[in-house]
Amino acid sequence: MKKQYAIDEWHIIEDHFNPENQKGSESIFSLGNGKMGQRANFEEDFSGETLQGTYIAGIYYPDKTRVGWWKNGYPEYFAKILNAPDFTGIHVFADGEMLDLAQWKTTSFERVLNMKQGILKRTFTAVSPHGKEVMVETERFLSMVDKDVAAIQFSITPVNFSGEIILSSYLNGKVRNEDSNYDEMFWDVLHTENKKDAILLAETKKTAFQLCYAMRNRLLLHENELGVHPDLQQNDVKVQSSFARHVAKGEKLTLEKYVGVCSSLNHEKEALVENAVLQANKAINKGYQTLKAAHIRFWAKIWEGCDIVIKGDPAAQQAIRFNIFQLNQTYTGDDPRLNVGPKGFTGEKYGGTTYWDTEAYCVPFFLGTASPEITRNLLIYRYKHLGKAIENASKLGFKNGAALYPMVTINGEECHNEWEITFEEIHRNGAIAYAIYDYVNYTGDERYFAEYGLEVLIGIARFWAQRVNFSGQKQQYVMLGVTGPNEYENNVNNNWYTNYLASWCLKFAGEVFTKVEKMDALRLSEIEEKTGFKREELQEWNKIYSNIYLPEDKKQGIFLQQDGYLDKEQQLAKDIPVSERPINQHWSWDRILRSVFIKQADVLQGMFFFEQEFTKEQLQRNFDFYEPRTVHESSLSPCVHSILANSIGRNDKAYELFLRTSRLDLDDYNHEVDEGLHITSMAGTWMAIVQGFGGVRVRNGMLSFAPKLPDGWQWFSFKLNFRNRILKVEVAKDSVLVSIEKGPSLTILLYGSEIVI
Amino acid sequence: MKKQYAIDEWHIIEDHFNPENQKGSESIFSLGNGKMGQRANFEEDFSGETLQGTYIAGIYYPDKTRVGWWKNGYPEYFAKILNAPDFTGIHVFADGEMLDLAQWKTTSFERVLNMKQGILKRTFTAVSPHGKEVMVETERFLSMVDKDVAAIQFSITPVNFSGEIILSSYLNGKVRNEDSNYDEMFWDVLHTENKKDAILLAETKKTAFQLCYAMRNRLLLHENELGVHPDLQQNDVKVQSSFARHVAKGEKLTLEKYVGVCSSLNHEKEALVENAVLQANKAINKGYQTLKAAHIRFWAKIWEGCDIVIKGDPAAQQAIRFNIFQLNQTYTGDDPRLNVGPKGFTGEKYGGTTYWDTEAYCVPFFLGTASPEITRNLLIYRYKHLGKAIENASKLGFKNGAALYPMVTINGEECHNEWEITFEEIHRNGAIAYAIYDYVNYTGDERYFAEYGLEVLIGIARFWAQRVNFSGQKQQYVMLGVTGPNEYENNVNNNWYTNYLASWCLKFAGEVFTKVEKMDALRLSEIEEKTGFKREELQEWNKIYSNIYLPEDKKQGIFLQQDGYLDKEQQLAKDIPVSERPINQHWSWDRILRSVFIKQADVLQGMFFFEQEFTKEQLQRNFDFYEPRTVHESSLSPCVHSILANSIGRNDKAYELFLRTSRLDLDDYNHEVDEGLHITSMAGTWMAIVQGFGGVRVRNGMLSFAPKLPDGWQWFSFKLNFRNRILKVEVAKDSVLVSIEKGPSLTILLYGSEIVI
Repeated sequence: MKKQYAIDEWHIIEDHFNPENQKGSESIFSLGNGKMGQRANFEEDFSGETLQGTYIAGIYYPDKTRVGWWKNGYPEYFAKILNAPDFTGIHVFADGEMLDLAQWKTTSFERVLNMKQGILKRTFTAVSPHGKEVMVETERFLSMVDKDVAAIQFSITPVNFSGEIILSSYLNGKVRNEDSNYDEMFWDVLHTENKKDAILLAETKKTAFQLCYAMRNRLLLHENELGVHPDLQQNDVKVQSSFARHVAKGEKLTLEKYVGVCSSLNHEKEALVENAVLQANKAINKGYQTLKAAHIRFWAKIWEGCDIVIKGDPAAQQAIRFNIFQLNQTYTGDDPRLNVGPKGFTGEKYGGTTYWDTEAYCVPFFLGTASPEITRNLLIYRYKHLGKAIENASKLGFKNGAALYPMVTINGEECHNEWEITFEEIHRNGAIAYAIYDYVNYTGDERYFAEYGLEVLIGIARFWAQRVNFSGQKQQYVMLGVTGPNEYENNVNNNWYTNYLASWCLKFAGEVFTKVEKMDALRLSEIEEKTGFKREELQEWNKIYSNIYLPEDKKQGIFLQQDGYLDKEQQLAKDIPVSERPINQHWSWDRILRSVFIKQADVLQGMFFFEQEFTKEQLQRNFDFYEPRTVHESSLSPCVHSILANSIGRNDKAYELFLRTSRLDLDDYNHEVDEGLHITSMAGTWMAIVQGFGGVRVRNGMLSFAPKLPDGWQWFSFKLNFRNRILKVEVAKDSVLVSIEKGPSLTILLYGSEIVI
Repeated sequence: MKKQYAIDEWHIIEDHFNPENQKGSESIFSLGNGKMGQRANFEEDFSGETLQGTYIAGIYYPDKTRVGWWKNGYPEYFAKILNAPDFTGIHVFADGEMLDLAQWKTTSFERVLNMKQGILKRTFTAVSPHGKEVMVETERFLSMVDKDVAAIQFSITPVNFSGEIILSSYLNGKVRNEDSNYDEMFWDVLHTENKKDAILLAETKKTAFQLCYAMRNRLLLHENELGVHPDLQQNDVKVQSSFARHVAKGEKLTLEKYVGVCSSLNHEKEALVENAVLQANKAINKGYQTLKAAHIRFWAKIWEGCDIVIKGDPAAQQAIRFNIFQLNQTYTGDDPRLNVGPKGFTGEKYGGTTYWDTEAYCVPFFLGTASPEITRNLLIYRYKHLGKAIENASKLGFKNGAALYPMVTINGEECHNEWEITFEEIHRNGAIAYAIYDYVNYTGDERYFAEYGLEVLIGIARFWAQRVNFSGQKQQYVMLGVTGPNEYENNVNNNWYTNYLASWCLKFAGEVFTKVEKMDALRLSEIEEKTGFKREELQEWNKIYSNIYLPEDKKQGIFLQQDGYLDKEQQLAKDIPVSERPINQHWSWDRILRSVFIKQADVLQGMFFFEQEFTKEQLQRNFDFYEPRTVHESSLSPCVHSILANSIGRNDKAYELFLRTSRLDLDDYNHEVDEGLHITSMAGTWMAIVQGFGGVRVRNGMLSFAPKLPDGWQWFSFKLNFRNRILKVEVAKDSVLVSIEKGPSLTILLYGSEIVI
């Protein structure tokens, strides 16, 4: 089979049109600027298979939960980032025939995503059913500088005829989510207008977010503006400006479309229309090239701080840039109300909401590639939801300010809809505490503990202290009825990872308490009062921490994923027939649940988080036991195994797992890229290089490196943003160069030896 | 609080009208004849809270499953017995005012269910908003003799005025299920006609069952037929015959309504209308009193074989008759395509489909109270579904003819919609095998093994043999990921009840195999060929049976509900605050799952099934451990505990639990009678008397008794249908009389001593 995309260091290139892959390519070529994003839907009509997708950060709809039998404590809705009204659309008619690549014959086709510049471009020639041939060039971007602005340049040239070309540029409020529990419409269009500016004002049902688009268009012939006035149309849900012009063979007619996109998340409702109009007008006045140049400059700056260069492995080079690019499109860190959805702005699945992916994967990425404020905003997102997390826990019967952060959320309320996840996959609570540790450990910003961290940690520790119970049988604290990271098991007892993480949280919360006490006693009193904290709680936490039950098999020297794991029929993933992989698409849920197979790193996820607490031999034994049983059917899994494989010298395994994670979407390993990209796991790919091949760790505030060059690579380099510096690490076959690109000198550990750079 | 219903030996009496309790009373006063049934909705209009309910046995709709995230192997629909078109309705106008007890003032009211006769009667006087007073008497029944016929007699007498009375008798096809996953209509009305006969023909969507009603009406004044021709009306969904007549004060106007009810389950579609018309005409020609007399005679015959008489405890007397009455209304045993839904014909909940309730509770009841064919038909129902059970299992990944009977079904396909039940509450498969044992043990009909039983047992045994796995850790066979009868725990390992029952099935299937081999070697070869049976399977079954892991706590001498049960925080049900009971209405599902509390008999259910395999001391220890932890929030639970309490001499406990089960609906213990009655658990009430206080067992074909008179009772008697005899057992304070009412003499065990009666 021909690969869908050509390998290139800075570009994703699709050099042939395959209608069957349109949905996949719509995902791959997605654009975003942190505030909005969209799939690479064609501007012109397309009657083939497509998933229309335009998403505005933070604008969601609470879709009533769909469960078989309702039980107390089930969340009432699943929040969904909505498919917003479409602003890219342009109906194109050539001599009366509507351009539609599902009906026309494409004679040449190229779609290019320029990752260096953040520009999506498409060039094709196509022949209509009646034989009219046109050449089309179209380019667009969502401005990283003027974040409320989208710009599109659509050019068409008649190749074998002269005739009338109509370009109808529109805004369309009639959109649906494919993912809708009860097949409802989520938007009401409040107002349409088409005078000087075309305006569409829409409001979400239930949540009443408002979104306004204002559109301006400019028509050019061979780059020269035509003073043409469009025909203005509108109905209840759509506004449209139509330009009709007779074009001679070989003449290029270009439409520039500028859209101002403003939502009530960032503007007063009363001023929405005005602001959107202002944005559109500012944009058209600046002009396409000016906007584009600023946008490209912005991207250059991003790359300056986070590029990874790989020599000798162009597929890996392309993949890692694609991952870094998509992450930067998804989250820009300037608004603590926003977060990183598992699919970012590239699809509807998972609702664009926040999972523990953020803390476990995205936090290390943003710590390493951007200034600390960006990550800090991700943490503050959770701080702002603390009240809701306490409410979530109390709905389940927990007391005294215990906080359970949701598995899936957008506004702090739980909105997953499977009890085995909602109530039970509670390890996410630990990941949120871990991210606080991670952030402070990396940045040295201990003030964060006092300002925000401790309050969150108290809520989380209280939850764990109530969630365990003392087993009379075992004379230890146990945790019953949980789901670990391995979601191919539900409702298990004593998941090692969860128990370990929970007890660590109890210890860490106590340590931070003591730190804040020393650092800022006044602030501590404030926190104690606010949370109704009693010092006995510290003793209670310590009692649990020091007597938690952690299942292990002493004979094999391994930790046990959960009680009873060894009662399962012991099988290895390599023995599953290829035709039955991924098992979640071929096996019944019953069979999966009862099998020994692990969806994603579970015990090993814990050993990854707390690597320094285990010996290399322990790590080896557990890796050798669990890796062969892990099917990696979560995108979050291979990167962790890859990093650990590097730690224990399994270099081939490390590279194999890295490849799997880095080209997951480009090569569509899981046959699901049509649904959107695996945005959060892209951070794992970055980790696999930086923490894996780069061997980067921060221990006690000191940055350490132990790079290894994978066999097939000639050379690689990565950047690190670390405590007001930008470091560059260059790894060759027989040399490692660590240099400071920006900032003061630094003492680091390189393969265990201190050096000053 | 005034009790809603007066205590009476043969009647349920509601002597005041309470609109808030209308839905509850609609359930309590339900009528049925095994082929159809209906809630006690008023004939006249009622604008208050009501649950309209008419149900035709076997007519169902596959309502698309509603789950959060679909996974492989999930059932596609939940089959629902539908709310069928309404045939009871009569609009009543008195001098222009529509009779509606939600608007009129009721000055007297009595609703009586005559359980001896199977007749529902209602008498009331009511005053209209404009002061018109009427007296109404209405009576109806669903004929037990002419099972396609319903008859209603509706009389109205103006009390304080003379004026026009309009009685509009109708058939209405515009009905909805309250329980609908996507709020769809389930019926299409195909045809309405109102000439000599009023006809309504409707068809279910998707399943295309057809149902035809034909209606005839007769108008009488003081019992004298008036030759009045009604005004005939019809529209797309309704046919109506309206009688208008000026009635003088004190004159009684009576409408007799006869409805023929025929479905395509029992008639060719082409002949449906004809047959319904025939039934309605036969009925009107026989006349109300003749139909009624035959119906009453039929009920007298039923009671002859199954009545239980209790002296000294009228509440218990009423309750047990209510339970026996409702069971006989629900299932009459003449059609092996039908079964006993948990709510029978009294509500929509649970969809009117078949659960393991049938095998565990209803089979003993019908064995004890009716001729063996009735129970045999319940067993054949499952035999007919064997192919589907094999299909169900194969969808989950089981092979080689393994059969998994569904948790919920109507046509053999699984249609529950929670994985933790569908895939995991597999003990039902054992109950189906157990019912075969039960039936043959009770009736002595060993031919059943050869004709039907063995095939089913092979399928079931094959399932268990594949469902267990050998644990390298334990060196025993284990069963992972199940839900026991205690649904307040899901996905547990080694549920003692399930493991015990499964291993018994393997042994029993082997024994039956040997029996059939001796009895009918030819038939055995047939079965072997049909099922592809290999003799090695017997060895495999035996290997598992003899080395199954059964969790126990040797220190306390108890069996453990499941692995890890003793890790839970040990609490007792008596310590739950009353305000938090039932816990399923007050606690989050999370809290319930992790608590020690048991919804219904689990280990004790197993000890009940296999009582003879345990010592009395074992039974006592387990009862004393589990009863205090059991909250009995399933209607199926208290009866089993009651029977066991009797076995170990806990007489007070036995009586307390009996009361709870017997008056569950009449006293609405669980605040849910408005949804319908707990039909299947009513069989448990019967068991609590016969097996509990009566101490009835059948061991090795011999009937044994060990009656005990509960403290408050003066005397009780029950009948038993046993091997072509009807026995009567009379228990007084100091005497027990066992006599044969019909059939040859018999040797029985009374308190362990053989006697011939």
